[in-house]
Amino acid sequence: MAQKGDLMTVRSDIQILDATIRDGGLVNNFDFSEDFINALYRANVKAGVDYMEFGYKASKELFDPDKFGKWKFCEEEDIRKVVGENNSDLKISVMADVGRCDYKKDIIDRKDSVIDMVRVATYVHQMPAAIDMIEDAKAKGYEVTCNIMAISNAKEADIETALEMVGKSSADGIYIVDSYGSLYPEEIRRIADKYMEVAEKYNKYIGMHAHNNQQLAFANTIEAAARGVSLLDATMMSMGRGAGNCAMELLISFLKNPKYNVFPVLKFIEEHMLPLKEQGVVWGYDIPYLLTGRLNQHPSSAIDFTKAGRNDYTEFYTDLLDK
Amino acid sequence: MAQKGDLMTVRSDIQILDATIRDGGLVNNFDFSEDFINALYRANVKAGVDYMEFGYKASKELFDPDKFGKWKFCEEEDIRKVVGENNSDLKISVMADVGRCDYKKDIIDRKDSVIDMVRVATYVHQMPAAIDMIEDAKAKGYEVTCNIMAISNAKEADIETALEMVGKSSADGIYIVDSYGSLYPEEIRRIADKYMEVAEKYNKYIGMHAHNNQQLAFANTIEAAARGVSLLDATMMSMGRGAGNCAMELLISFLKNPKYNVFPVLKFIEEHMLPLKEQGVVWGYDIPYLLTGRLNQHPSSAIDFTKAGRNDYTEFYTDLLDK
Repeated sequence: MAQKGDLMTVRSDIQILDATIRDGGLVNNFDFSEDFINALYRANVKAGVDYMEFGYKASKELFDPDKFGKWKFCEEEDIRKVVGENNSDLKISVMADVGRCDYKKDIIDRKDSVIDMVRVATYVHQMPAAIDMIEDAKAKGYEVTCNIMAISNAKEADIETALEMVGKSSADGIYIVDSYGSLYPEEIRRIADKYMEVAEKYNKYIGMHAHNNQQLAFANTIEAAARGVSLLDATMMSMGRGAGNCAMELLISFLKNPKYNVFPVLKFIEEHMLPLKEQGVVWGYDIPYLLTGRLNQHPSSAIDFTKAGRNDYTEFYTDLLDK
Repeated sequence: MAQKGDLMTVRSDIQILDATIRDGGLVNNFDFSEDFINALYRANVKAGVDYMEFGYKASKELFDPDKFGKWKFCEEEDIRKVVGENNSDLKISVMADVGRCDYKKDIIDRKDSVIDMVRVATYVHQMPAAIDMIEDAKAKGYEVTCNIMAISNAKEADIETALEMVGKSSADGIYIVDSYGSLYPEEIRRIADKYMEVAEKYNKYIGMHAHNNQQLAFANTIEAAARGVSLLDATMMSMGRGAGNCAMELLISFLKNPKYNVFPVLKFIEEHMLPLKEQGVVWGYDIPYLLTGRLNQHPSSAIDFTKAGRNDYTEFYTDLLDK
């Protein structure tokens, strides 16, 4: 597949999704202040960001609301407290995990909601359940994406079957998700070409959600974009599980569309992300994450290692090799 | 130009150069302990690194030896104190800056030296002086590279002329140097193809020296490699001026050649790089470097900003836009 666009002009199909609360919430248990959320919403609107993801629509049967911040559940009224009727160009998204969301009950009709998009997160082996959630959200009137996670650990034939299943569904978009941050740009280009073929066959768009285990989240995101991928996830100062995601400040500096403005992003980081770091909330590239990424493993062991304040990398690496 | 190699096999032409002392020395004024240097040498030998750069051959007329650590000058006897006769496969390199090196005097015959390679660092407008240094080092028996710096700020026609000049010289290799960390993978591929054409025409190899201002040092290094570039610079834990360089731990984890071993690198980082960080030596990706990189400016203003302990990014950005 040929390169789409170049470094001088604008690709008007490209859009940015801010996933700071949703992926960043995995780091601090969704414990964000009202002030932080309000400022983030305003910063995204000012920066020209296209979508802001407020968090998960997690089941309150499965997860105790007393043990998590409210953005794990994204109640309609909580979002409205921040955005009112959302009189802006910024669209609002939530993520719904297969097997962790009472979607039939908790996702209401779009006409009664301030939410614009539902992103269904699934593993390859859960595709039938994912399709059911996609059709449910679509029937309720939402824009819907299907985010197939951990593809670096899935069989290619299974990914192809999954892509055909989503292709035939009502989903509007399909996401490439590098959950373990293990993929190199060369692989991302190959994967993006495969996803783009499905997109063209079924008239859908492709998204990219990267992790920064090998300092490749930004590189992989812009390389995917150059193959035609158009919905790009980023988070303020990379905040996200483990090594974090593609940094909003890098992505918005890179894109040439004059609707984007890096200034409100820098201001938000200065006023709200730096204090979070100072409070001891930890995320971002570090050697333990490089090692799990390199070995194509879930970052959980690296997260535990980091939380324990350990830095005996050689011991950690030896342990990983035994897994 | 077609891709060279793939993610499964070994490209035996690829070699790694450790530039921790030389580029990292720009951060701490070359103030490394004996213990650090000795351990780094041993780690590089064990890790299978191909070249270790000990520092600069700077003129003692221009720079006061009392004001810099000894690796700014790389005296023969100082290197020998670390490596003895260097009975290893690791080659030793030094960098010589055009206009800052008394090369006729300070670079002795290779037969009397433990140094294997001289890297001549030059700006495009200094090419005639660079060629004189290249021929001098070559006549003395050294492997020689020409590192053309700051190409993101040079005219393409001038770069082409410079490449022809080096092509016709006795240099063994030519380096792509992204001094400001401003180049994207897409540009690096284009530049690598151009350099590789010269390399094939004149029978030379091409090297890559990246900076991490936009978290692209590793990505740009492996993308350059995939176009045929074969001498890859890296530093322990990215240590280098401003945002630092391509991280050795990332590069050596990526390469498939069984001669490379990440374990001694992790051990060195654990025992020697973390203490350096704890002592307050500062380098690595940060927002001010992203901004100078994005604007294709020298990182000096970002270094000053960081040293001053400032984090008013918006003010800094506004100032940069005025430059």
